[in-house]
Amino acid sequence: MQVKAYAIQAEGQKLEPFTVERKEPGSEDVLIELMYCGICHSDLIIANNESGAAMYPVVPGHEMVGRVAEVGADVDLVKVGDLVGVGCIADSCRSCSPCEAGDEQYCESGFSLSFNAFDTSGEKTFGGYSSHYTVNQRYAVKIPDGMDPAAAAPLLCGGITVYTPLKRYGAGPGKKVGVLGLGGLGHLAIKISSAMGAHTVMLTSSPNKVADAQKLGADEVVLTSQEDDLKAHAGSFDMIINTISGEHDANSYLPLLARGGNMCFVGAPQTPLPIMISNLLMGDKLMSGSLIGGIPSTAEMLEFCAEHNITADIEMINMDEVNEAWDRIEKNDVKYRFVIDLASL
Amino acid sequence: MQVKAYAIQAEGQKLEPFTVERKEPGSEDVLIELMYCGICHSDLIIANNESGAAMYPVVPGHEMVGRVAEVGADVDLVKVGDLVGVGCIADSCRSCSPCEAGDEQYCESGFSLSFNAFDTSGEKTFGGYSSHYTVNQRYAVKIPDGMDPAAAAPLLCGGITVYTPLKRYGAGPGKKVGVLGLGGLGHLAIKISSAMGAHTVMLTSSPNKVADAQKLGADEVVLTSQEDDLKAHAGSFDMIINTISGEHDANSYLPLLARGGNMCFVGAPQTPLPIMISNLLMGDKLMSGSLIGGIPSTAEMLEFCAEHNITADIEMINMDEVNEAWDRIEKNDVKYRFVIDLASL
Repeated sequence: MQVKAYAIQAEGQKLEPFTVERKEPGSEDVLIELMYCGICHSDLIIANNESGAAMYPVVPGHEMVGRVAEVGADVDLVKVGDLVGVGCIADSCRSCSPCEAGDEQYCESGFSLSFNAFDTSGEKTFGGYSSHYTVNQRYAVKIPDGMDPAAAAPLLCGGITVYTPLKRYGAGPGKKVGVLGLGGLGHLAIKISSAMGAHTVMLTSSPNKVADAQKLGADEVVLTSQEDDLKAHAGSFDMIINTISGEHDANSYLPLLARGGNMCFVGAPQTPLPIMISNLLMGDKLMSGSLIGGIPSTAEMLEFCAEHNITADIEMINMDEVNEAWDRIEKNDVKYRFVIDLASL
Repeated sequence: MQVKAYAIQAEGQKLEPFTVERKEPGSEDVLIELMYCGICHSDLIIANNESGAAMYPVVPGHEMVGRVAEVGADVDLVKVGDLVGVGCIADSCRSCSPCEAGDEQYCESGFSLSFNAFDTSGEKTFGGYSSHYTVNQRYAVKIPDGMDPAAAAPLLCGGITVYTPLKRYGAGPGKKVGVLGLGGLGHLAIKISSAMGAHTVMLTSSPNKVADAQKLGADEVVLTSQEDDLKAHAGSFDMIINTISGEHDANSYLPLLARGGNMCFVGAPQTPLPIMISNLLMGDKLMSGSLIGGIPSTAEMLEFCAEHNITADIEMINMDEVNEAWDRIEKNDVKYRFVIDLASL
């Protein structure tokens, strides 16, 4: 089945119209007519070959929402017409211990990213900058009733990425959670941490982000450029969600952690960060990383977000504006996630 | 009261005989006639002013064991003749919440290190390279019956430093614990982790340490210089106790951690370590630091060690051999802790 898409066809090129051969849905597959796809920074990193792993042509996109258009004979989890989302995980072995536990992101054979990868049948995956997507029903998560499908799209990667560590490390009433970086991940971290009941603090060096962070639900904003502000909050945070994906000096922020506090990284700086270990020793502190989340957690996160009226703040674009959107992402010029209206494809 | 000691009197000088004015024991103090003092690498760092905090003259030493020689009127925890030890903590406010919880190392006013610091009465502390020590009874921990007092001395700092994170992070049956660095801390980590019931693995680049690690109780030794060995153990460690205090590439070892595994640093490299955050993201891994332990934990650790026949492997020296011992420590030439026989003072 030939469907419309946008692809980068070789390193250094721009995204342009492309035709993808989607597989006909097998007995457990669903064919989704895509409506929206969020643009995550990792689309750029992979498709521009910054990670060195691009397999051209690359159709990016892993924050997809659409309606089920066709189902295989054995599909019983969703039905035609259902609104569903697909995130990073488009396939996995489904039989190893992590898969059985619903931690498909740690599939022992490696999960299949929804683009620029191979699924378990050996077919290459092409992502959500496209009109349709075929996937095993397990990886198509229902979008809760009443949730705006466009603004839900970024939850499929951005939302689960911050929800997982906030839940794992106990964000909730009585806890003080800091958020570093106010982008796609950061703005969702503020919303979700606040909804979990934690005292949520935006940590930013930019005075012009104060009002935005407050609007998103931050209980407080600490200007990290102000020595006095940093000192006043030293030793007080139970957790800091660090969403910064570029180079930065984490040592400036580690002293903000309370004894036993945890700085959890959800962004992936491409170069090593210099860490003064004494910042961890004094106060028995931790640094951690967290990688998206499995399919059951994604469903749980969507329910949580629906219950708390959380979706992403998005800027909707047409498909032919995608190259401009990518340029703006490189300059951090988006509040807070671009979403492609695939009706424009 | 004037007592014998060894001190460094100015930056760049060697240790030499010195007379210390010890305070007469107050109502809650004990005067200890010191028998043994361990030599910890931080003695060198502080007294040689590598940390920039030396207040000369400096009498080092914070792994002391001796007999109570005199007690103040209100002393009720120990009596004359008791064998006791004093570690890093010689004083603290005793009234803040961490002090009340027995976490004196996190005293809100800052604990007083047993040398090169000031106690709560404002008097400068001089350490255990000396014939006598006066301290509040709270900080004099009983050495369990039957324990060799000389080999017990290094437990007061080295032992508690590794015991605390091994206990906090659940070393025990069914857990696989790695130990990086085979020195004063590392050799005690092997013994204590094994005694806790964890499958304990020495991680070393030196083939000539294999037999030593096995003798100390390591269940396995992994040669980190062998790519194949590293690969075979990738993703398998619940915890790695990192005792390396010099510069090193922790990124080589982080992939050894299992999902959710924790590399706990107990040494303090003086320069930042470059850390690839992706090593934490993939597998939701953690890095942590741990700082000694409080007085109740120190007593508990000593009981644990007595029960499991654990003391340090030591090389006993006379006081006038201390400068040579320090030179050898700089070359990592000791198995595994020097202890000064203070009868030689």
